[in-house]
Amino acid sequence: MSADKLSSVSKEVKPESMSLYPLGTAAAPEQELLCIFGTGDLGRSLGQRLLHSGYRVVYGSRRPHSCGPLPQGAQAMSHEAAAQSASLVFLCIHREHYDFLETLAPQLQGKVLVDVSNNLKKNLYPEANAECLQRLIPGAYVVKAFNTLSAWALQNGPSDANRQVYLCGNGAEAKQAVAEVATKLGFAALDRGSLSAAKELEDFPLQLFPEWRMPLYVAVGLTAFIFVYVVIRDVVYAYVEQGEDNSFRIMVSLANKVFPIVSLIMLSLCYLPGVIAGFIQLYRGTKYRRFPDWLDRWMLCRKQLGLVALGFAFLHMVYTLIIPIRYVTGAPYYFKNNRTSVFDTTTAWRSDSYYSMGILGFGLFLLLGITSLPSVSNALSWREFSFIQSKLGYLTVFFCTFHTYLYGWDKFLRTYKWYMPPAYMLSLVLPSVLIVLKLLLLLPCVDRSLTRIRQGWERTDTQDGSEKPLLT
Amino acid sequence: MSADKLSSVSKEVKPESMSLYPLGTAAAPEQELLCIFGTGDLGRSLGQRLLHSGYRVVYGSRRPHSCGPLPQGAQAMSHEAAAQSASLVFLCIHREHYDFLETLAPQLQGKVLVDVSNNLKKNLYPEANAECLQRLIPGAYVVKAFNTLSAWALQNGPSDANRQVYLCGNGAEAKQAVAEVATKLGFAALDRGSLSAAKELEDFPLQLFPEWRMPLYVAVGLTAFIFVYVVIRDVVYAYVEQGEDNSFRIMVSLANKVFPIVSLIMLSLCYLPGVIAGFIQLYRGTKYRRFPDWLDRWMLCRKQLGLVALGFAFLHMVYTLIIPIRYVTGAPYYFKNNRTSVFDTTTAWRSDSYYSMGILGFGLFLLLGITSLPSVSNALSWREFSFIQSKLGYLTVFFCTFHTYLYGWDKFLRTYKWYMPPAYMLSLVLPSVLIVLKLLLLLPCVDRSLTRIRQGWERTDTQDGSEKPLLT
Amino acid sequence: MSADKLSSVSKEVKPESMSLYPLGTAAAPEQELLCIFGTGDLGRSLGQRLLHSGYRVVYGSRRPHSCGPLPQGAQAMSHEAAAQSASLVFLCIHREHYDFLETLAPQLQGKVLVDVSNNLKKNLYPEANAECLQRLIPGAYVVKAFNTLSAWALQNGPSDANRQVYLCGNGAEAKQAVAEVATKLGFAALDRGSLSAAKELEDFPLQLFPEWRMPLYVAVGLTAFIFVYVVIRDVVYAYVEQGEDNSFRIMVSLANKVFPIVSLIMLSLCYLPGVIAGFIQLYRGTKYRRFPDWLDRWMLCRKQLGLVALGFAFLHMVYTLIIPIRYVTGAPYYFKNNRTSVFDTTTAWRSDSYYSMGILGFGLFLLLGITSLPSVSNALSWREFSFIQSKLGYLTVFFCTFHTYLYGWDKFLRTYKWYMPPAYMLSLVLPSVLIVLKLLLLLPCVDRSLTRIRQGWERTDTQDGSEKPLLT
Repeated sequence: MSADKLSSVSKEVKPESMSLYPLGTAAAPEQELLCIFGTGDLGRSLGQRLLHSGYRVVYGSRRPHSCGPLPQGAQAMSHEAAAQSASLVFLCIHREHYDFLETLAPQLQGKVLVDVSNNLKKNLYPEANAECLQRLIPGAYVVKAFNTLSAWALQNGPSDANRQVYLCGNGAEAKQAVAEVATKLGFAALDRGSLSAAKELEDFPLQLFPEWRMPLYVAVGLTAFIFVYVVIRDVVYAYVEQGEDNSFRIMVSLANKVFPIVSLIMLSLCYLPGVIAGFIQLYRGTKYRRFPDWLDRWMLCRKQLGLVALGFAFLHMVYTLIIPIRYVTGAPYYFKNNRTSVFDTTTAWRSDSYYSMGILGFGLFLLLGITSLPSVSNALSWREFSFIQSKLGYLTVFFCTFHTYLYGWDKFLRTYKWYMPPAYMLSLVLPSVLIVLKLLLLLPCVDRSLTRIRQGWERTDTQDGSEKPLLT
Repeated sequence: MSADKLSSVSKEVKPESMSLYPLGTAAAPEQELLCIFGTGDLGRSLGQRLLHSGYRVVYGSRRPHSCGPLPQGAQAMSHEAAAQSASLVFLCIHREHYDFLETLAPQLQGKVLVDVSNNLKKNLYPEANAECLQRLIPGAYVVKAFNTLSAWALQNGPSDANRQVYLCGNGAEAKQAVAEVATKLGFAALDRGSLSAAKELEDFPLQLFPEWRMPLYVAVGLTAFIFVYVVIRDVVYAYVEQGEDNSFRIMVSLANKVFPIVSLIMLSLCYLPGVIAGFIQLYRGTKYRRFPDWLDRWMLCRKQLGLVALGFAFLHMVYTLIIPIRYVTGAPYYFKNNRTSVFDTTTAWRSDSYYSMGILGFGLFLLLGITSLPSVSNALSWREFSFIQSKLGYLTVFFCTFHTYLYGWDKFLRTYKWYMPPAYMLSLVLPSVLIVLKLLLLLPCVDRSLTRIRQGWERTDTQDGSEKPLLT
Repeated sequence: MSADKLSSVSKEVKPESMSLYPLGTAAAPEQELLCIFGTGDLGRSLGQRLLHSGYRVVYGSRRPHSCGPLPQGAQAMSHEAAAQSASLVFLCIHREHYDFLETLAPQLQGKVLVDVSNNLKKNLYPEANAECLQRLIPGAYVVKAFNTLSAWALQNGPSDANRQVYLCGNGAEAKQAVAEVATKLGFAALDRGSLSAAKELEDFPLQLFPEWRMPLYVAVGLTAFIFVYVVIRDVVYAYVEQGEDNSFRIMVSLANKVFPIVSLIMLSLCYLPGVIAGFIQLYRGTKYRRFPDWLDRWMLCRKQLGLVALGFAFLHMVYTLIIPIRYVTGAPYYFKNNRTSVFDTTTAWRSDSYYSMGILGFGLFLLLGITSLPSVSNALSWREFSFIQSKLGYLTVFFCTFHTYLYGWDKFLRTYKWYMPPAYMLSLVLPSVLIVLKLLLLLPCVDRSLTRIRQGWERTDTQDGSEKPLLT
């Protein structure tokens, strides 16, 4: 294998090669020369870093003699001269100024053009900057790269969220040349394919949690609603009807009612779309028709819904564990000791099961959270991932719902205040529906149909193609 | 450097090149045509996705005019015509049907064949599907790819556990062509080497936590045993001898006895094989002989043993923290208040040390768990990883064992019921043995011998090669 | 695209190719032959693994007939014969012995030389081993690889922290040949660029948490200081002035004073350098001058400072939650019940807010910790990462500081013992300063100046270039 590779290496060492150094010696010439177009912030930051990493840098500028302070050691030339001196040109100029590059087409012929530009917002232009550039100068190898880094990282080298340089372009060798530079600057270069990926790379630095928005809106909305509900039911009611000032309960007691309720509802919202999709496929008798848009979007943010729910579950756990501290540290006024302390094995079973279900549910939930860490889910096969997220996921839903039912126990449907049921009852609606629907899907006859549909079977009214083999 | 690369780019632009477009322009032709063999579920899912990503798709079929519904925009042809129209052919057919491909060898000559197939179970065939294919059509470039994705991901694009397309094959350029398609479909392509890796890739989607099985069996077995033990000792004993019904204690109190015991035993099981290996090497006087199979397999699942132990330790922590809540929330019948509340500094030291050891041990344990996340351990050098997993690991074992000894304190060997010692004493056997063995290995003279053996020194009976330099 | 790639594949199949097998058949020859120079530990471990993975191995040795035990199946020859028999040579010899290789230059011409060597400490030589080797044998393709693996992994294949083989070298095809071998041995090969990265790769296995040192020293120093402080104030004072023996409080109560204090101080230390950098840039009126060295180094370990602080915060949380257990489990002597149990809504608000701030602060802190996991921060765009680490980071600082102020409440500046203020007051100095400085930077006029400076604007005394466009 290696011998074959070597043959193609040795092939490259031939007289007509325009290589700067004979590959036979395989010794990199020190101080390769790179060119930067643009003496603005971006150009200067990048130039400083390149110089610092052992490259020589020449700037192309409209006014090479008055282009302001350049990094020490860099040289300014006219665009033409600069382009001719180096085989790799960084473009640190705004897209609006790309037009003048057309006049440089002869000088840029065969050069690697690295487009570092970003736009101020998404979809300003129909075409990616890099694609526009490639159209203007068809003879050059345009590579989109470095645009996802912060200015700080461009100037100072990799830092936490800036270790990776994504690049794309149509010429494999051109991309490799840029990747070498990125590696030498300390970054890890990741090839994202042909220049058609440029649009995506240009949108990347502008994004701010696009797939987290819906889940966070839902979380905020639910939290606000439940909070108002429990404040009315617990604080306002007590104040109006009994003249008691319970307002201090907002900080811990009521928070600890809001968090588990929101968590359980969002956990159901995370698993509901999968069940709905199953019913839609059953109804349609095929899996090849697209789901309605709302369902598609819902399914794409399941992970985020689940992680937000996990966050609320975590807060619920800590708020619960903090309860006895308030008691112990001299605040017995929190607790009205008019409880019946009659020993009762049933009650003991119930309350201990209640705690156990909560803990085990939270433990499983945490496991789901850990397996959705990118590095962990990448290490899992699809079968393993779906085992955890589906099988263990429904177990989590069941534990948490059961935990809440045990909390209610015999107080169910009894303790209304101003016709408002206790808040925890609100949280039980969705998970109960979810569990019933899931159980329906697990019925053997339903499950069989669904499995066939998911393997490609289609229900046809004419009944002729219904037993088609899956692979032909 | 880049200039050299460019030279080989420009070389590619020559008249005899069969390139579809001149690289000099570096503009990707829109709407590349790809071919799919097989109109079953897999073929249709993949075709739908390819069409959606901007490719043109042509299907090869035995009955091009009656092959059932195809994705909108796709065309069906005979296998021969389809193969000739595209340079990249996806094979979405079962291995049993590969034979007919031999007749297409002339049309497939020089094409890239992407083998997407999977088998129903491991080791059905002695040879990987892709290798069999390569043998049948030696003139084609077979690339194994996309088989690790779920059908859902093939149809709808990347989702959580389906971001990476593993590929392998013998032709580097063929692999790159497939990688480009994968990237354009939104996946990250990962090269796994030559076609001999196909077997591994075909086994990957079938695996279901192979390396977790043994640890999970051990955990389940231990949990069951300890659970029965404490139920007999605490519940059945009380019922038989004192007529008390303690059964409610199962849910929290007994669970909280089982979890720490299983956790401590499994933590020791995680470090024991390393110590045993050390003694075997000392005994044999060389590190070049393979360990017995059982030890090899044991060593390979140390990480999983440790993580399961961490899960149990986490449950132990939460169950412990829940104890006072039961007391505070009106359930004082849990606690028999016949304790001696005489203040005693020694007791206070002991019980506070007991808590502290437990917390610090758990904190260290958590640190071990975090460093075994793939992305974290990849970022560590081998020296750093072994520092954490070995040095801090033994510290964790020590803290947790000491925590358990402090729990016992002066009750040791005193409170037998039906001749059964308290359950926590069972958990102390293995970690105590482990710590003693480790201390033996740390004795200067033993440590020196072991270090030399691990650096390649071999004890020979003839004594002649004993002082060989490590590198010659 | 793929057609173009194929053209260059087919080009390689030409008569003058010295390929071992015609690429047209794309069938890898079984049992490729590799050569290893050096029969020491490293050479034997590696050879064993290569043989086990299906390669044939030949050793090059000065004394081929008396070079000691070799792995079964390997052959020993003279260096010359061994080098000529294979196209890929692993060098498992110490750098000191490289000199003799010069005499082998004719045999090694055009071969791939894999330098596996490591040094005993950093900066022993001015030049990397691999670069020295390339200089000695300019006609060979030197690739640095495998040196970051442990000897165990080299012999037994990948394990947890040894999955990745970093390689660098000047010949792309040579690197690919080595990457193929690495893949076949079960490792993932990662290209780190040209041979100038060899120095970095050779330093990697020697590093032991270089960027964690400063934060850990700070943590240890702070912990020691605060510990002594609270021991004097709480234990020694009580002993001397009141004759009480409080020493048992060290294990839990005092630990739980030390941890939150150290955590809060280190959290401030994590955000302080960013604020200082802002003021320096404002003062200088430019971002292009380098920060003082101490600030640079401080900024580079912010992540580590924060993670250590998170560890202490975690311990604080668990130690706090353990408090009521001590009370419940029969140890009421811990608590002096001379507290005023008068119900007071203000006190209740204060203490519940105190708990809530602490929990929310810890929850946010945990979120910061999770987003600094490598796999998570790699998935974030720069804008998202800086939103979390900066916006949510300062919110965390605020919550935690407010939590501490609420802890103090009206005891502020009152309870001195031996003129020593309570320890928590010490922890408030830095975060308070940090918050004030940050608020100053957020003043609209200051913020505007700083933003302009960070976009590349420079304050010049001559005032001529002050309104330069950012990109030209």
